[in-house]
Amino acid sequence: MTSPQISLPQALRQLQATFDAMPPVAAMQVRVGDYREQRLAVDAPLAANVNDKGNAFGGSLCSVMTLAAWAWVTLQLRLAGHEADVYVADSQVRYLRPVYEDLHAEAGAGPGADWEGFLATFRQRGKARIAMVSRLLPGGQPAAAELDGRFVAMARR
Amino acid sequence: MTSPQISLPQALRQLQATFDAMPPVAAMQVRVGDYREQRLAVDAPLAANVNDKGNAFGGSLCSVMTLAAWAWVTLQLRLAGHEADVYVADSQVRYLRPVYEDLHAEAGAGPGADWEGFLATFRQRGKARIAMVSRLLPGGQPAAAELDGRFVAMARR
Repeated sequence: MTSPQISLPQALRQLQATFDAMPPVAAMQVRVGDYREQRLAVDAPLAANVNDKGNAFGGSLCSVMTLAAWAWVTLQLRLAGHEADVYVADSQVRYLRPVYEDLHAEAGAGPGADWEGFLATFRQRGKARIAMVSRLLPGGQPAAAELDGRFVAMARR
Repeated sequence: MTSPQISLPQALRQLQATFDAMPPVAAMQVRVGDYREQRLAVDAPLAANVNDKGNAFGGSLCSVMTLAAWAWVTLQLRLAGHEADVYVADSQVRYLRPVYEDLHAEAGAGPGADWEGFLATFRQRGKARIAMVSRLLPGGQPAAAELDGRFVAMARR
């Protein structure tokens, strides 16, 4: 359940390796981006995620936002010394406008989320749940899509 | 806005061609299935949609359920003689349990949806919105995931 301490760059490389090992994620050419100000970025080229209308496929928008939030939880747990299976439990997605640019998502804990409480519960029970928010922010413009979701982490035994 | 009448098999082949032309959908190897009892099925092999835990990637579940509902709306419009750009506007997804089987989704109009009203609005305004339900039903078992979503159709001009 507890792993040796790793650095942020190492943890980001681990996430990229996990993405690359998942066939649908590799096909979407998803890249782990920067982690700063408690938010993790994830990117993917439009060309690998385009729909019949020449803009981004809704399923790819959902996937990239889900992955950003999933990776945030996995990253935070690893930096705290834990290996866990992280699942999305539910999500609400609003597709606000078509995306004609490369996909750039940023995820962080939801407004009411309590990371310390999540971590304490995870350590005590081997399982915890956290509310996450993920946004599709193409080219620094206002969000083109938003995801609110709950993610569950289960300690690997 | 109005196209010549086409048969159900022709319309299903058109949907498959659209899926195959979308890179992320082709990568997930999504196949249009049967249309019966007002529900359209969509399938995809687990191998092309697997995650780091050996079960189906949440983004693929979201994508396949979204595609089934999107295809249902597109199909119904085509059978009624209309070509439209169909978008998902929002969706709520519940991931109920991990999926270790090939992906099989079935979509239909939501419980409160009024197809005739949708069609009348579309014909009058060139734009209409409908509530859809999509379920992930692996191997005829109870749903492993559920999507409630609203879809918007805009007439092609």
